[in-house]
Amino acid sequence: MTADEPPSSGLSVGSELLVRAIRGVPTIRPGDDLAEIIASSLVDARVELADGDVVVLASKIVSRAEDCFVDLNGVSPTEDALRLGAEVDKDPRLVELILRESVGISRKTRGALIVRHRLGFIAANAGIDASNAAPIYPPEGTGPWVLILPRDPDASARRLRTALGERFSVDVAVMITDSWGRPFRRGTVGFALGIAGLPPVWDRRGSTDRHGRVLEATEIAVADSVAAVADLVAGQADEGRPLTIVRGLRFQLSQDSSEALLRDAVDDLYA
Amino acid sequence: MTADEPPSSGLSVGSELLVRAIRGVPTIRPGDDLAEIIASSLVDARVELADGDVVVLASKIVSRAEDCFVDLNGVSPTEDALRLGAEVDKDPRLVELILRESVGISRKTRGALIVRHRLGFIAANAGIDASNAAPIYPPEGTGPWVLILPRDPDASARRLRTALGERFSVDVAVMITDSWGRPFRRGTVGFALGIAGLPPVWDRRGSTDRHGRVLEATEIAVADSVAAVADLVAGQADEGRPLTIVRGLRFQLSQDSSEALLRDAVDDLYA
Repeated sequence: MTADEPPSSGLSVGSELLVRAIRGVPTIRPGDDLAEIIASSLVDARVELADGDVVVLASKIVSRAEDCFVDLNGVSPTEDALRLGAEVDKDPRLVELILRESVGISRKTRGALIVRHRLGFIAANAGIDASNAAPIYPPEGTGPWVLILPRDPDASARRLRTALGERFSVDVAVMITDSWGRPFRRGTVGFALGIAGLPPVWDRRGSTDRHGRVLEATEIAVADSVAAVADLVAGQADEGRPLTIVRGLRFQLSQDSSEALLRDAVDDLYA
Repeated sequence: MTADEPPSSGLSVGSELLVRAIRGVPTIRPGDDLAEIIASSLVDARVELADGDVVVLASKIVSRAEDCFVDLNGVSPTEDALRLGAEVDKDPRLVELILRESVGISRKTRGALIVRHRLGFIAANAGIDASNAAPIYPPEGTGPWVLILPRDPDASARRLRTALGERFSVDVAVMITDSWGRPFRRGTVGFALGIAGLPPVWDRRGSTDRHGRVLEATEIAVADSVAAVADLVAGQADEGRPLTIVRGLRFQLSQDSSEALLRDAVDDLYA
């Protein structure tokens, strides 16, 4: 994608990667033009996008812009949600929303439903943010409000990629991330939720090391690796750093969506 | 740890993080003084360590320096290993080594045993590298050779932290990483295997966002997030970039080991 040293196999990594959080992004309101806000935040921060940059957005601001707020008061739980809510000690209206966002339950425990989201990934509570999500000025008598994930994060990423490309005449990638817990290990890390342009996975099987030996079993989760550091540098989206620019990857433009990162249930020993 | 803006809660992240792979690290031989080699590689690359840098090493070079090579010809599989090897279609001598490195089997499938390593984490084949691991000049009639993980990666990281600190009069953190597959998602990412100085987890529960609301359930896996990007920038250790410097984190020196990243089996819904 970038001019110097075009990679032969989809991606290469320069010896330096710069991860930069953009300060001063305003709190996003439903209906906001996210591309416009990103553009002016970059200008304000005196950051010029370059070809090959990866623009990383915390999913929360995409959800806010796309008005993915739901007032739990307007949600009527089904029998299933009532039963499940009692079982895991969780607001049945929230359980109802989680079930609507999901295609199956992977595990359940007190306070958490770990589900396969309708988009295919596994996440606790379908990625619904119930902790501190609210429209800025909720009308009186409404709420509690929760924020669900964007309807189609890959499509949102593609739209933003196009808009930023037109605005700045650059060829960037866009990624939308969310932070989730994981099996086996403590703490959350960032994951790639929506991707436009960046190769999700770097398939190095068949390439050789510096001794000429063929590399085995080497599929690198590029997008998740970038998401992890971007989310770390961003901190909490609520702290006003929901936008991160990653510079130094060299990649051929990819058409793959975030789906390329998902194991088939049949391949997954832990599904 | 670093002077400007000391963090109140163990860690903060600057708005810029620079991840730099050091070129020209020679192939490591058993018995090599890793601190010495790192030091001269940094000097050759004209990279000066600064307080608060995180020095990240691919586990493979630590294993090589500590002579963790095993000649499969010298391994006698037990009955268990023979049976299991037949079951998953894997060299029973390698299966024997995997079992010796493990405290239990989590899942098994054709070609792979996913085990709880004696150090507590879950990894396929106990992290043993059987693909292209060999001493540089294996004596005739020996092998196949495999490379097991360092005996005590946290101790190795602490030793290197001390040695680099004395050599350059800096207060750095050291992390040893390995790349593993994960449940649910395709591709490998880097994980923290040994840690010295860097807080493994950033516990933000109870802190507030910019609207003064208390953050919920916010434990960030700092070390794994840094490991992910370091391993991406390093590429394959065999390509001669097994050493990465991460600059821009601000952290209070932590005494925690990598164990802080491991869920208790009882807390783990997928154990």
